[in-house]
Amino acid sequence: MKLREVLDGRWAEVRQAARDRLAGDRFVAVPGETIEQARERVTRLLRELPTELAAAGFPAEHGGAGDPGAAVVAAEMLGFLDLSLMVKAGVQWGLFGGAVAALGTRRHHDAYLKKIVSGDLLGCFAMTETGHGSDVQRLRTVCAYDPDTESFDLHTPYEAARKDYIGNAARDGRVAVVFAQLITQGERHGVHAFLVPIRDADGEPLPGVTIGDDGHKAGLLGVDNGWLSFDHVRVGRDMLLDRYGQVAPDGGYSSPIDDDARRFFTMLGTLVRGRVTVGGAASSATKQALTIAIRYGETRRQFTAPGRDREVVLNDYLAHQRKLTVALATTYALTFAQDQLVATMHEVQSAVDPVDGHRQRELESRAAALKVAQTWHATRTIQTCREACGGAGYLAANRLPGLKADTDVFTTFEGDNTVLLQLVAKGLLTGYRDSFGSLDGWGRTAFVAEQVREMVLERTAARSLIQRLIDAAPGGAERPFTDRGWQLAMLEDRERHVLDGVIRRLRRNAATREQPFDVFNDVQDHALKAASAHIDRVVLEAFVAGIERATDPAARALLSRVCDLYALSTIEADKGWFLEHERLTPVRSKALTSVVNGIVKDLRPQMTTLVDAFGIPEAWLASAILREEPRRQEDMAVEG
Amino acid sequence: MKLREVLDGRWAEVRQAARDRLAGDRFVAVPGETIEQARERVTRLLRELPTELAAAGFPAEHGGAGDPGAAVVAAEMLGFLDLSLMVKAGVQWGLFGGAVAALGTRRHHDAYLKKIVSGDLLGCFAMTETGHGSDVQRLRTVCAYDPDTESFDLHTPYEAARKDYIGNAARDGRVAVVFAQLITQGERHGVHAFLVPIRDADGEPLPGVTIGDDGHKAGLLGVDNGWLSFDHVRVGRDMLLDRYGQVAPDGGYSSPIDDDARRFFTMLGTLVRGRVTVGGAASSATKQALTIAIRYGETRRQFTAPGRDREVVLNDYLAHQRKLTVALATTYALTFAQDQLVATMHEVQSAVDPVDGHRQRELESRAAALKVAQTWHATRTIQTCREACGGAGYLAANRLPGLKADTDVFTTFEGDNTVLLQLVAKGLLTGYRDSFGSLDGWGRTAFVAEQVREMVLERTAARSLIQRLIDAAPGGAERPFTDRGWQLAMLEDRERHVLDGVIRRLRRNAATREQPFDVFNDVQDHALKAASAHIDRVVLEAFVAGIERATDPAARALLSRVCDLYALSTIEADKGWFLEHERLTPVRSKALTSVVNGIVKDLRPQMTTLVDAFGIPEAWLASAILREEPRRQEDMAVEG
Repeated sequence: MKLREVLDGRWAEVRQAARDRLAGDRFVAVPGETIEQARERVTRLLRELPTELAAAGFPAEHGGAGDPGAAVVAAEMLGFLDLSLMVKAGVQWGLFGGAVAALGTRRHHDAYLKKIVSGDLLGCFAMTETGHGSDVQRLRTVCAYDPDTESFDLHTPYEAARKDYIGNAARDGRVAVVFAQLITQGERHGVHAFLVPIRDADGEPLPGVTIGDDGHKAGLLGVDNGWLSFDHVRVGRDMLLDRYGQVAPDGGYSSPIDDDARRFFTMLGTLVRGRVTVGGAASSATKQALTIAIRYGETRRQFTAPGRDREVVLNDYLAHQRKLTVALATTYALTFAQDQLVATMHEVQSAVDPVDGHRQRELESRAAALKVAQTWHATRTIQTCREACGGAGYLAANRLPGLKADTDVFTTFEGDNTVLLQLVAKGLLTGYRDSFGSLDGWGRTAFVAEQVREMVLERTAARSLIQRLIDAAPGGAERPFTDRGWQLAMLEDRERHVLDGVIRRLRRNAATREQPFDVFNDVQDHALKAASAHIDRVVLEAFVAGIERATDPAARALLSRVCDLYALSTIEADKGWFLEHERLTPVRSKALTSVVNGIVKDLRPQMTTLVDAFGIPEAWLASAILREEPRRQEDMAVEG
Repeated sequence: MKLREVLDGRWAEVRQAARDRLAGDRFVAVPGETIEQARERVTRLLRELPTELAAAGFPAEHGGAGDPGAAVVAAEMLGFLDLSLMVKAGVQWGLFGGAVAALGTRRHHDAYLKKIVSGDLLGCFAMTETGHGSDVQRLRTVCAYDPDTESFDLHTPYEAARKDYIGNAARDGRVAVVFAQLITQGERHGVHAFLVPIRDADGEPLPGVTIGDDGHKAGLLGVDNGWLSFDHVRVGRDMLLDRYGQVAPDGGYSSPIDDDARRFFTMLGTLVRGRVTVGGAASSATKQALTIAIRYGETRRQFTAPGRDREVVLNDYLAHQRKLTVALATTYALTFAQDQLVATMHEVQSAVDPVDGHRQRELESRAAALKVAQTWHATRTIQTCREACGGAGYLAANRLPGLKADTDVFTTFEGDNTVLLQLVAKGLLTGYRDSFGSLDGWGRTAFVAEQVREMVLERTAARSLIQRLIDAAPGGAERPFTDRGWQLAMLEDRERHVLDGVIRRLRRNAATREQPFDVFNDVQDHALKAASAHIDRVVLEAFVAGIERATDPAARALLSRVCDLYALSTIEADKGWFLEHERLTPVRSKALTSVVNGIVKDLRPQMTTLVDAFGIPEAWLASAILREEPRRQEDMAVEG
């Protein structure tokens, strides 16, 4: 069955290479470690990872493959093994190394990239502060230039300005890319990045540098998160990562981008890969959890039933099928969406000529959207899977506790999901889209009343196919639920309508609310819903386009059924909205639930096939119940 | 403000005594322990708990207070301190000691209860098996009587029959109450309980007893869960806990209850206190998480807004308010429902004459309902609170990781929530209610077609008040949303309608489905919905009755507003159903959302007051951010 090939997507070779190169249990997470054991093992294994995995995203001239897409996919594969290792590798090569590559210039690349790729120089990405995680534009670390010494004075003015939750800080990092407010010749020029040594060759903090340990966390124990505080630390002028902003020896500032905020968000934009990676890795964890829960449910039995000679397997219960199979369908949808996003990111980041701002911001918006979708889906689905495995699901040896604890923070780092949803919503309003992608909560609401114009829904995948599907049947009440064009039209229509409502309310609020803050705040729930509706729609489009790439007829037929389940369960979950806005009648709505249940039952015999297609090697699953439960059931079957 | 008194409920004195006797941080959970450290600390602290807390539920003649309600409330208070300690205490006194008290007779009480209460004899409750957690009627451990030796042969026939997930097994327990299939004179008499020594005075497993360790779990590291396997272990005849079934020296069996299954479920019914306790303790964890998240949200600031001189506090954002305040309203509702349940349980268990079967099964059904509601609410709300606290919420020192990890299994133990919902649904159908409370999945579907008659919704609290409220206004479209009678009528009507649908479908399935299993399975989702609708309704009734007990006008007014939020957010969350069944028009449905948002905003200034009313001592909250964030914000405010 060609299903796995389709899911492996455009970088199938990278996935297969990872399965081969990282085979066995060598890199598999170890349940029940102490924090010290986890940190030691992850740091050791980081250095044992194949070089091509570490280097994939870096320019060829510095030992890399110049393949950003491969770097993301390799990280997704690491996500099946050990999320701490995935995050540690992401910090080292994606964030720290990525910042040096994207924000530094030739001299930085020549001096540092090779050591970063080899793991000889472990480093940190120090942007987040205790007081500012989401609104990093307003971070408080300062870095002031002194022409007399031709160096900067890096300083943490108070506790809330500490760099915090910094991976590689508490134990291993020797250098940090530190983001700080640049001041020179008495003027502030916004946030810039500096390369700052933090530990000496013996591992001791350098003068003026204080390093703290964030200590025990809910999960990701193998990542040594800590905080950094700088007490007037001297940083050489050449340590400014100066691709987007330069300081001359006399302190004169220059930059190709005049506006401070625009410049900062342009810098951030080059780091979009982290967000794309986190979304993809979250989906790896989801796939792992579903594989464990569905395979367990195929062997685990409980309660007798008339007409059945043995107790009933869990997967035979409608409620059990529903929760797992619907989550599985969404996971399939997100897999296609992620594959498409990685391809887009790869194109943009590999382009020889700089990409226009509009495409860059579309990429950032899509990355935010899929980060939100995949991380919330992961944390909810893994919870469902833990409960579906009962008491066994609570034991660390069965892997689900680790998956839950490790993925929990994915909804917060690389962008808080609620804040990211607002970013997505703003991107849908043409008045904002052409401005720089500010992360703030619609701060410039003065903007809003004048600039919010018509929104334009852009189709994002398989445009002509989708247009044909939607046009294929006349509008009207009685198109079958399994008509793909109807499904797409329903989601497009909802997105358009909700966005329209956001615009209407913003204009009304701007005219009537006394408090400027309320102009935005009163519409926050609608804005978040608009973003969610947008995400559902683009994900369905990606699923449709993905099915087109499948050549095997059996695979296409099965994927089509799974796509029906994704689309219809998505509509069903929001039937309140569709009924409220009379896109569904009460009769159709009840019928919809029956149809969804019917597809769930149709897919019952394929549950295992569908998770097998994720292609997670047995040794990577490492869940004791998958070995033990079949054997235990055999004991009981013999006894009768 | 008298709010705390109202929430403290009927056993307010017990709560206050706990706050006093367990003051300070001595019993507070310690984040970041190893499994060995956690087990050692919890076992040590178990023995340091005040005797009245340990003894509350036991008969006075054996050193107890004969106060079942106080035992539950004391456990709920322990839930604020350390859920491992709460569970360990619950295993020791509630399950192990409770089984000896409820299922044993005088000689067992005289020999064991005092040592159990004092903690000198630590023991296990060994019912669950690896292969049977939910359907314990079908557990596989056997215990066969041999008249020649006047003893039983207790045996684990294969691995799946091991007693598993047993608290107090892996480290501490010396004796276990073991549930096994009793066989005598060649006949099986169903599941009975036996008192079985498992370790000698030196802590070594006794001959024939194998003890294993379940190892690392997602949480509750302080509870030493393990498995027990018996290899033809001899158990004296007098070690049968023989209140409900006796074996004479010659092996003759006798019992006041003829039917094996009825006898077993009667025995289980005496142990309902565990289920009531788990629900209440889950709510304690929810309250703790909400207190931390809401107080943090009152100080934590992020993003500027026009017209605001400082960054905006998180609690000012509509989306933040919505998620936290709606969860808070549900928590208030469940607090009143739990208080009412504990009172009912106390009455039933304190009754001098045995209570009629109908009342006992109603108690069991209500206990199941509130266990489901409170544990799912806990796990979802604590997740929301963790995300609301961002990166800080991920650090163990801020308490949320421990609350999440510890409560996660509460949706599974003391009854898997999905199975319990089915139990609740069955209790609503009069054909089942008068039968014994079988836990199986509607196994006897032959039953169904003949016996399912009209269902009767019984009002469960403040009956006459509720009747007056519902009757107070004529039926019709335009009653205000805040009309309590309208709210009650909506939930009653939904419950009635969904139940009616379950009955209709069961009858139809019994006539048309080929596979008997499908008669039930096809309607499983409707049955679960019927149970959920029932739970929402009885919880609202309890909230209404609870407000009546409040004497302070300001408290009543605030509680009434919170009750509006509970009722209306519950209806809003299921507006799909209400629209589908034309109980709401599209126009009313949109208005409902506006009204909910309006109440959320009205309650904004009261968020802290509402969590303060939970009365969790500062030392028990033990969340570092509550001390640190105000200080850090002051630093930043000064800087401007």
